Amino acid sequence: MSQRNELQRIEAFSDAVFAIACTLLVIEIGVPHVEDVLRPGALWPALKAVWPSFVAYLIAFASLLIAWANHHRALKLLVRSSGALLYANGFLLLTVTFMPFPTAVLAEYVNTAQANIAVFFYSAACLTMNLGFNLWWLCVCRPVRLLAPSVSKAAERRVTIQTLSGFTFYLCTTALSYWLPVTALIIISGVQVLWIVMSVEEEDRVESTDSEQVEPLTPVKAHGSWLSTIEV
Amino acid sequence: MSQRNELQRIEAFSDAVFAIACTLLVIEIGVPHVEDVLRPGALWPALKAVWPSFVAYLIAFASLLIAWANHHRALKLLVRSSGALLYANGFLLLTVTFMPFPTAVLAEYVNTAQANIAVFFYSAACLTMNLGFNLWWLCVCRPVRLLAPSVSKAAERRVTIQTLSGFTFYLCTTALSYWLPVTALIIISGVQVLWIVMSVEEEDRVESTDSEQVEPLTPVKAHGSWLSTIEV
Amino acid sequence: MSQRNELQRIEAFSDAVFAIACTLLVIEIGVPHVEDVLRPGALWPALKAVWPSFVAYLIAFASLLIAWANHHRALKLLVRSSGALLYANGFLLLTVTFMPFPTAVLAEYVNTAQANIAVFFYSAACLTMNLGFNLWWLCVCRPVRLLAPSVSKAAERRVTIQTLSGFTFYLCTTALSYWLPVTALIIISGVQVLWIVMSVEEEDRVESTDSEQVEPLTPVKAHGSWLSTIEV
Amino acid sequence: MSQRNELQRIEAFSDAVFAIACTLLVIEIGVPHVEDVLRPGALWPALKAVWPSFVAYLIAFASLLIAWANHHRALKLLVRSSGALLYANGFLLLTVTFMPFPTAVLAEYVNTAQANIAVFFYSAACLTMNLGFNLWWLCVCRPVRLLAPSVSKAAERRVTIQTLSGFTFYLCTTALSYWLPVTALIIISGVQVLWIVMSVEEEDRVESTDSEQVEPLTPVKAHGSWLSTIEV
Repeated sequence: MSQRNELQRIEAFSDAVFAIACTLLVIEIGVPHVEDVLRPGALWPALKAVWPSFVAYLIAFASLLIAWANHHRALKLLVRSSGALLYANGFLLLTVTFMPFPTAVLAEYVNTAQANIAVFFYSAACLTMNLGFNLWWLCVCRPVRLLAPSVSKAAERRVTIQTLSGFTFYLCTTALSYWLPVTALIIISGVQVLWIVMSVEEEDRVESTDSEQVEPLTPVKAHGSWLSTIEV
Repeated sequence: MSQRNELQRIEAFSDAVFAIACTLLVIEIGVPHVEDVLRPGALWPALKAVWPSFVAYLIAFASLLIAWANHHRALKLLVRSSGALLYANGFLLLTVTFMPFPTAVLAEYVNTAQANIAVFFYSAACLTMNLGFNLWWLCVCRPVRLLAPSVSKAAERRVTIQTLSGFTFYLCTTALSYWLPVTALIIISGVQVLWIVMSVEEEDRVESTDSEQVEPLTPVKAHGSWLSTIEV
Repeated sequence: MSQRNELQRIEAFSDAVFAIACTLLVIEIGVPHVEDVLRPGALWPALKAVWPSFVAYLIAFASLLIAWANHHRALKLLVRSSGALLYANGFLLLTVTFMPFPTAVLAEYVNTAQANIAVFFYSAACLTMNLGFNLWWLCVCRPVRLLAPSVSKAAERRVTIQTLSGFTFYLCTTALSYWLPVTALIIISGVQVLWIVMSVEEEDRVESTDSEQVEPLTPVKAHGSWLSTIEV
Repeated sequence: MSQRNELQRIEAFSDAVFAIACTLLVIEIGVPHVEDVLRPGALWPALKAVWPSFVAYLIAFASLLIAWANHHRALKLLVRSSGALLYANGFLLLTVTFMPFPTAVLAEYVNTAQANIAVFFYSAACLTMNLGFNLWWLCVCRPVRLLAPSVSKAAERRVTIQTLSGFTFYLCTTALSYWLPVTALIIISGVQVLWIVMSVEEEDRVESTDSEQVEPLTPVKAHGSWLSTIEV
């Protein structure tokens, strides 16, 4: 079985783990209990009281979606796997599957006096997930370079900078969260929305440069064009 | 890696999320507790009392199955992906994974005085899922058309009309549910059954026109015939 | 996209649902609570008291595994899909995802005075799953025959007989369970073990006839030989 | 459908089950409840008290990851399936899906007087999973050899030794756990880390011997080189 298949298997396994982690987030939202069931409209305030769970669900889903998109985008640059990558990928998935827990803690305590600890814990979990991705990328770059020969040094450096800046970002929000939990949470959400918008624009730029690909070119050319746009 | 593979990955990830969301619905059905375990037959009334959960489970499963079938049918018309589509698909999956929660609320309160709020909430969740699909389809059609060149304007308009009429439908049931929750729920279920029947007949019509495909034709012809039957 | 891909997608979605349903069974086993934690060995009787959950878990896992193997074996005979099959498959998956609930009820009440109802409910769920498979197979055979031309009438009749005899079997155990729950449960388990053993021998017979396939033959021959052994 | 596809299906189904089992582990970690929510910092001790769950989660995740890697590595050596393998694989998956339960028991009781029973139970579950893998490998080797002709006897014996030594190891830790639970748990974790490190080095050695594969060789050569390095 070729190396390409080895990568496909890592991708398939990772995709399944990401998909399940995303879906499990909703289990943590408990059905609200209404004491006075007979009074009409009593469910409204009970549903409204669940808002921290909704917010935590949204934020955590966005985090996992971004992590999944990044994981996939980086994986596409590889031509082969390694033993170290297999387990670095496993560690990354460990941090991914852990996310439902800090999310549940966040939902439970974000609107209490414990908010700073809850946001700190959540932000630290994001930091760990990012650390897992940095480690994953390190295993891609050394000791043996697993990237396709067509991936330029500039493209490689670009991903390195992205993962390291993500690390710095979560380090700052984790530190900030202890004093200003709500501010830290708003910054995390805001930057994540920004990442999504930037990523959409970037991919669309790639797409538009790439649009002649729909008319089948020679395979090598089509493959090269995608990579070359990254270097820009 | 080609654009076709990019679409396959989106499909595989989405399929996993749909499959998990469908399966998680059953977790919300709690095992009934019998106080007088020693009295023979005491489990009967306890099991019967779970009927709202069964009903909610059936309705929600049907909703997700229809959403999955629609998602797949539309995805088959695409030849390429875009950054916007990636995240529009992510938003659609967010609304899909959320469904177990309104389903659990529906199961808990459909036979209480809170029924109108529970059905309203459930119907609004369906509306949001439909909104996610409308957004998804919008990203398919513009700014860059991601559809296969062989997909006619008529076929494109057809899907647009279907998604918009679904939106109008859920808007009406959501409004209705506040005054007539049970009626709204029956209308939702009835129309979903109707959709399934119509969709079966439509696909079978496509199939029967398509039946010569079993004998391998030239690939282009086989592909074209499927699409041309849609325009009819 | 060809019909073959349509079938692969149904298979992938079904596989994911089966896999999740299998895995969710374990969630229903609650961690035993020990009142006198300080007394050494107090966990033993608590763990032993969970045995009905273990038994229910084993039986339900075997049921789902057999259903998965049958589903897959039948799916391999198809060359094309239909709208009716898509939703018949959806109904089958509905009955599959439902299984964790009757399993949990069985685990909770199998060693109480409510055993007859619990086994009746579990057996009825198996009956419904079998009904789903009968319906699925009906949609394969008519109105349009979706089977590969190389599948003989004898092979088709064989699957029909298997599904119908399974239906009769579960009908009997469901009826029996109301008076003799434990006997019914033992019969269900015993017959399932028998099915597995028979199925292993059958497949191995197919394999041994098939063993020259490892040396690549002409594709048509290799495909034909698998099917022809079924007719024997 | 060819035998290769039969193996791919087993791999896909197994991958899904492993992925879900890994992800479900986190569900068992309960959100800590804080009695005095108004007192700042009250969440810290509550979060710290969850440490046994974290430890159990880490150890169980590592076990499942190793099992998944071994399962996949062995599966790559096969060229065909058999009926016995199908159900041996099913039994292996049964033991895999069971893991979240002993993990939850371990988390609940590892820091109580019941630790010996909890670790014994967890270690016995690992032993059963290993037994499942031994059975799986037995079905691969006999009565019909399902391995690729290019897999040498030495490579086959190597896997046999690995699975049997794993069995001996877990037998020892299970016995030890009854008297020295914490020591047994540390030995299990330590040896698992060792396995991961060894496995990384081994795969990297394979990779470095294999590195010319990136430049496409003749397919037969590329496939052969991977297998021949195993025999070394």
